[in-house]
Amino acid sequence: MNEVIEPSAIRQAEVITVGTELLLGQTVNTNAAQLGLFLSELGISVYRMSVVGDNKGRLSEAISQAMSRVDLVILCGGLGPTDDDITMQVAATVAGHRLVRNDAVWETIQSHFTARGFSVPEKNVKQAMLPAGQTVLENKNGTAPGAIIEGKSAGRTVYLVLLPGPPDELTPMFENAVRPWLEARTEDRFEHRYIRLAGIGESAAEAAIADLIEKQSAVTIAPYASVGQVYLRVSQRKPRQDTDDTDLRSVVAQIRARLGEYIYEIGPRDLPEVVHDLLKQKNMTIALAESITGGQLSAELTRFPGSSAVFMGGVVCYSNASKIRDVGVDAAVLSEHGAVSAIAAKQLAEGVKARFDVSVGLSVTGLAGPGKGQESAEIGTCYIGLAIDGQDTAVHCYKSWGSREKLTRRVVIHALMHLWEALR
Amino acid sequence: MNEVIEPSAIRQAEVITVGTELLLGQTVNTNAAQLGLFLSELGISVYRMSVVGDNKGRLSEAISQAMSRVDLVILCGGLGPTDDDITMQVAATVAGHRLVRNDAVWETIQSHFTARGFSVPEKNVKQAMLPAGQTVLENKNGTAPGAIIEGKSAGRTVYLVLLPGPPDELTPMFENAVRPWLEARTEDRFEHRYIRLAGIGESAAEAAIADLIEKQSAVTIAPYASVGQVYLRVSQRKPRQDTDDTDLRSVVAQIRARLGEYIYEIGPRDLPEVVHDLLKQKNMTIALAESITGGQLSAELTRFPGSSAVFMGGVVCYSNASKIRDVGVDAAVLSEHGAVSAIAAKQLAEGVKARFDVSVGLSVTGLAGPGKGQESAEIGTCYIGLAIDGQDTAVHCYKSWGSREKLTRRVVIHALMHLWEALR
Repeated sequence: MNEVIEPSAIRQAEVITVGTELLLGQTVNTNAAQLGLFLSELGISVYRMSVVGDNKGRLSEAISQAMSRVDLVILCGGLGPTDDDITMQVAATVAGHRLVRNDAVWETIQSHFTARGFSVPEKNVKQAMLPAGQTVLENKNGTAPGAIIEGKSAGRTVYLVLLPGPPDELTPMFENAVRPWLEARTEDRFEHRYIRLAGIGESAAEAAIADLIEKQSAVTIAPYASVGQVYLRVSQRKPRQDTDDTDLRSVVAQIRARLGEYIYEIGPRDLPEVVHDLLKQKNMTIALAESITGGQLSAELTRFPGSSAVFMGGVVCYSNASKIRDVGVDAAVLSEHGAVSAIAAKQLAEGVKARFDVSVGLSVTGLAGPGKGQESAEIGTCYIGLAIDGQDTAVHCYKSWGSREKLTRRVVIHALMHLWEALR
Repeated sequence: MNEVIEPSAIRQAEVITVGTELLLGQTVNTNAAQLGLFLSELGISVYRMSVVGDNKGRLSEAISQAMSRVDLVILCGGLGPTDDDITMQVAATVAGHRLVRNDAVWETIQSHFTARGFSVPEKNVKQAMLPAGQTVLENKNGTAPGAIIEGKSAGRTVYLVLLPGPPDELTPMFENAVRPWLEARTEDRFEHRYIRLAGIGESAAEAAIADLIEKQSAVTIAPYASVGQVYLRVSQRKPRQDTDDTDLRSVVAQIRARLGEYIYEIGPRDLPEVVHDLLKQKNMTIALAESITGGQLSAELTRFPGSSAVFMGGVVCYSNASKIRDVGVDAAVLSEHGAVSAIAAKQLAEGVKARFDVSVGLSVTGLAGPGKGQESAEIGTCYIGLAIDGQDTAVHCYKSWGSREKLTRRVVIHALMHLWEALR
């Protein structure tokens, strides 16, 4: 790259996401949040985030302005093959580099198509046009390579990092190439612990540790929530080489002493992954009888490599006929108590467990609404049945709420929480 | 231009959302997307969106810069009672107004607390400190009022609109107060048509209409892509009263003439919703036998109110035993051809159709990877079976790719596309 051997330290960054669809509100900017999280973990302060459309003049202006303020500008999106994908060209021009065809990249792109028996669209040669002499970032999940481009602003070196817009291309490219590159150019880092809780609300969780939040200094505690779940982020900024995590561990221990019964993970895994891993670790197998969640629970438990050793199958028994025929519920139970009843949930859990010959049968039955059909149950009311080897069958009643999407999502999380509690 | 229109006409806007939690990636910026959508409906072009933290200097700089570029700056967040809520004070200062206590607002805030039997926190008087002589926006869902503040930039009038951060306060305030205020100050609106395609890549779709994109003037065409799908946004800015959509319809008709076979929707619905509605409209019912997609297809078809009239159920037959027992595949077929075979897909589709007594049986079987199990099929290869009343059973082979998540998502979209093609 340069004659300078010591890489200049990177302390501040801005994030620019590119795409008219973001300005029009058609797409929610999850990439900016993801990049904010990554940079914060690296101890890099983000001063500003911007969104600009697919417009050369305005993108160029936004890049120059950001370069005048910070050491690092992360650009995301606009690396596709079409005419309105302009990020590579504009960033190269602002940084004073011309684009040349990178033959290795062009061959990779071509083989991406030919391997699938497609002809190579002419347009895609554009994605091989890269700034001369700059770092190319390989894209293992798509055709658009990224780049790290060196530029100057008022004599200072500023780096532009260009990443593709699709989240599952952006994240691996950041993790594989950008994170190590940044780690070599930063002095501090943030060390985080993510404490994940289920079965308790955000306010109640926060109230239980209010005094710890109040007196935080070197170690900070930030609560946040998603549908049905609460997270606590415990963070400390420290020199990269400093491996002493005594302070962090002490705060985590205090939180665990207060909220231990709700904590299903201190780490990166979400609830479905924790449950999946717990089943695997205990050599247990599971089958599901889903009604209200319509396949979402099965989909959550089959997200993981190797899940076919744990998940033996499921029945999305959306009709009474299916509940009777495919899971073995008594017709009389359905006509007497309705499909949304504790006894139906019990028979569903036990029925699916016996039928699939597994260690765990899990059932969910309820009304998602907004219509009620012929059921007398309230919308949002559901029953979760759990039939587990060596345990009595348990049925939990839960009242969910919100839009159809959020309501069913809450049921998914709640069912997994009960399963986790029964297995832990 | 300038001499013809009224001085108060608003054409361009920027959106600034305020909050360190956004920069740290703890919160996804859904407010910016919501505001983008609102402004686009009003025919106001959004040039840029920014996020800044709770820092006076940087917020002040961002506001001044935005004022230099556009007629309207919407600010969102930072109106709370705590010390790091600085938006009202900073915006008033930049626009040259001082804050005075608004007694009517202060009384409303006080009664908000006293009505609930709480004492009034001293801090909250801050939320009654508003720019003298400017428009106050009542908050019916919280304590923070909004404001419309008039300022100047290089002699031009620029309006600052301040809205609270919680989405359930922001949206009603926008709808009740800001939208009518803006409608009185805008002459144009944007009219959009969303054309949705499946079964064709973004490059190929764009190539087919390259000349239309090239010669676009009043009507613009913007392509974008998500996993397995391509969208074209066709847009025209026009006077609010103008209901003539001849130009827009002409461009849509030309696109339809080129790409009609791939277009499943001109409108807001995604592919699962189009397929769901098509089944409903034809009084057809469906059942699924899913292997590789692990419940995702069922989850997609049960997202909609009333789906229980269309979707009769599904089997997530993740094991061979389940394929045989629950769907009726021949054991000999599985041992001879494997579970990932055309004949298995055919038997799964026909079996699930017969078992659930529905008009459509849809099956998907394949390997999601990354491990291969005992199957000899390639990772990503899958077979999609379609057994439909009055049609011969069809089996489609598809080679998907990417991460486990994207690979299975592509199969979901591909299966729905074949179903749509068979039903249209």
